[in-house]
Amino acid sequence: MKRVCIIGCGSIGSLYAAHLARVAEVWAFVRREEHARSLNREGLRVSGAHNFQVSIKATAAPDELPTCELGIIATKATHVEESMAFVGHRFDEGAIISAQNGLGCEEIIAEHTRGYVIRGTTFMSGTRHSDTHVQYELDTATWIGPFEPRNTPYTLVKDAAELIVAGGLKAEALQDARPAQWSKLIFNASVNGVSALTGLPHSTHFADESQFSSLGNLLHELMNEGKRVAEAVGVQMHEDPWEMNKIGSMTNHPPSMLYDTRHQLPTEVDFLSGAIAREAERVGIAAPMHTAVYRLIKGREASWTFADENRAAAAQEKVH
Amino acid sequence: MKRVCIIGCGSIGSLYAAHLARVAEVWAFVRREEHARSLNREGLRVSGAHNFQVSIKATAAPDELPTCELGIIATKATHVEESMAFVGHRFDEGAIISAQNGLGCEEIIAEHTRGYVIRGTTFMSGTRHSDTHVQYELDTATWIGPFEPRNTPYTLVKDAAELIVAGGLKAEALQDARPAQWSKLIFNASVNGVSALTGLPHSTHFADESQFSSLGNLLHELMNEGKRVAEAVGVQMHEDPWEMNKIGSMTNHPPSMLYDTRHQLPTEVDFLSGAIAREAERVGIAAPMHTAVYRLIKGREASWTFADENRAAAAQEKVH
Repeated sequence: MKRVCIIGCGSIGSLYAAHLARVAEVWAFVRREEHARSLNREGLRVSGAHNFQVSIKATAAPDELPTCELGIIATKATHVEESMAFVGHRFDEGAIISAQNGLGCEEIIAEHTRGYVIRGTTFMSGTRHSDTHVQYELDTATWIGPFEPRNTPYTLVKDAAELIVAGGLKAEALQDARPAQWSKLIFNASVNGVSALTGLPHSTHFADESQFSSLGNLLHELMNEGKRVAEAVGVQMHEDPWEMNKIGSMTNHPPSMLYDTRHQLPTEVDFLSGAIAREAERVGIAAPMHTAVYRLIKGREASWTFADENRAAAAQEKVH
Repeated sequence: MKRVCIIGCGSIGSLYAAHLARVAEVWAFVRREEHARSLNREGLRVSGAHNFQVSIKATAAPDELPTCELGIIATKATHVEESMAFVGHRFDEGAIISAQNGLGCEEIIAEHTRGYVIRGTTFMSGTRHSDTHVQYELDTATWIGPFEPRNTPYTLVKDAAELIVAGGLKAEALQDARPAQWSKLIFNASVNGVSALTGLPHSTHFADESQFSSLGNLLHELMNEGKRVAEAVGVQMHEDPWEMNKIGSMTNHPPSMLYDTRHQLPTEVDFLSGAIAREAERVGIAAPMHTAVYRLIKGREASWTFADENRAAAAQEKVH
C-alpha cells in the first residue's frame, strides 16, 4: 500500500485525503495542531456528490511525518513556500503534485524537494463544513502532467492518476499539462480578479455582454488577452476559458479571491493575473488588463494595513 | 447687483455660495427642505483658507426660485439631470456654469435651459462640516470657458470669472476650457477609479513606480491612455495629469468615488472612466484600461443590490 501525504486540508485537500484513504495510507500535514487532533480522532467525512467516512493519520509536526511516495500539496498558493520548507525533504524519493490555482507553484516546490514534481490542475470544488467534514460539489477531473524542468517520467504521472481514480475521484494523466493549467489559469485569473474587485460572486453579470458597460465584456477581453499571452508563451488551450465562465456564471459560487478580500486575507493574485502579467512581460507582449487587475488587487491588499485614521477621516463628508 | 443661484450645496457649492454672497444676491437651490431652512436661518460659515460668515437665500422648492442671471451647478454629476429638470428654465435668459467632475454634464444642462452654458472645471476642495459650515481647503482656480454647441460668448465667460474673483475665489476665463477639463478628467478618472477599487485614498502608493506590481505604474498608464484618447479627440492638455497625481499622492484625501463606494452611493464613473471609454470608442481607438475600470466600478455598483443571501453563503469556508 502506498503512503501518500496531503499537505493542507482545506476543502480540496480534504477531498483528496478522504478519497485516497480508501486505497492508500494517508497522512495529512496541516498547520493547526487542533486540526490534526480532530482528524486523528474523528477521521474525515465526505458528503454531497460522494458519501463516506474514513480514518486518516494527521500531524502538524514536520518531524512526525514519515517519508512518502506521493504528496499532493493543496494549500493556497501563498502557503506553498512555507509548507514545502517544512516537509519538502520527505518526498525526496517520491513525487509531489501541485494542486494550486495559477502558475508558479511547481517552481517553488522544486526548490524544496529532490523528488519529482507533477503539474496539477483541479476543477473539483467543495465546501468545508468543519475540520472533519467536507461536502463534495463538482465531481470533475484533476489533470496532471510532468513538470518539465524536473524530467518527471510520464509513467509516474500515470501511476498517480490511477491511484486518484482508484480512490474514487476523477483524474487524467497528460503528456503536457500546461494547456490544462493555462486554461484554468486564464479562467481563474479573470474571474477571481473581477469578483474580488467588484464584490460579485460568479453570477449572470459575468457572462452579460448586452451593453457597453456590461461586465461580461471585460471578462471576455481578459480571457482573450490571457489566450494571446498563452499563444506567445507557446501554450495551446485545453478548454476555452470563456466556455468555463459561461458555466460558472450560472452558479452563485464566491471565488476564493472574493472570500480572501472580504476577510482581508492575502490573495493568490501573484499566481493568477500577476503570473499572466509577468509572463507577458517576459515574452515581450502587452497584457494591460491583467496587469491592471494585478496592481489593483495588490493595492487592495495594501489598503488593509494602511493607517486606519484615513478611514475615520473618510467618514466625514468630503467632495473633491 | 447680479442674482446668482448655486444649485447643490455640498462642499463645492457651499464655497461658491458663500463667496459670491459677498458680491451678489445669492440663492441656493438644495434638495432637502431642512437644508434650505438652516441656510435661511443661519447663513453660511467658511473656515480654513478663508474665514467669514454670510447670509444667503435658500429654497428646496423650484417655484420659489426667481429667474437668475447666472447659475453654478455644483451637484454630483449623477444629479445634474434631476436638478436641471426642476430649475433649468430659470436660467433661460442667463447662463449656467457646470462645476461637475468629468465629461458630459454640459450636454445635460443644455437640454434643460435655453440660456448659455459654460464649461467649468474646479480644483477647489473643502470639507463640509454641516449644512451651514464648510472648511475651505485647496484655494485653487475654477477654469471656465464657452460650451461650444451653445455658442456662449466669451465676454459672458469673462464676466462670470470676474464675479467669482470679486467674491474672493480664484477663477480663470479661457477661450477653450476643454484642455483644462480633460486634464482634470484624466486625473480624476484614473485616481477615483483606482481609489474606489483598491480602497486606498490619495497616498504615496499612487505615485510609487518602484516595482512591477506598484500601483503608480497603473496610474501612470491610465493617465497616458487618457492622454492618447484626448489627442485622438483633438484636445491638448492644460496641465499634466501625472504631475497633479504626484501632488495628490502627498495627501491622504479620499477621492469622492472612494466615499461613494464605502457608502454604496451611485458613483460618477459614467462621467469619468466611462466618458473616456466612450470617447475612445467614438473616435475608434483602444482604451482597455479605462474601459476595464469603468466596467469594474459598474460591477461594484451592481454588487450592492445583488441578493444578500450570496453574501451570507460566502461566510462559509469555500475554496475553488
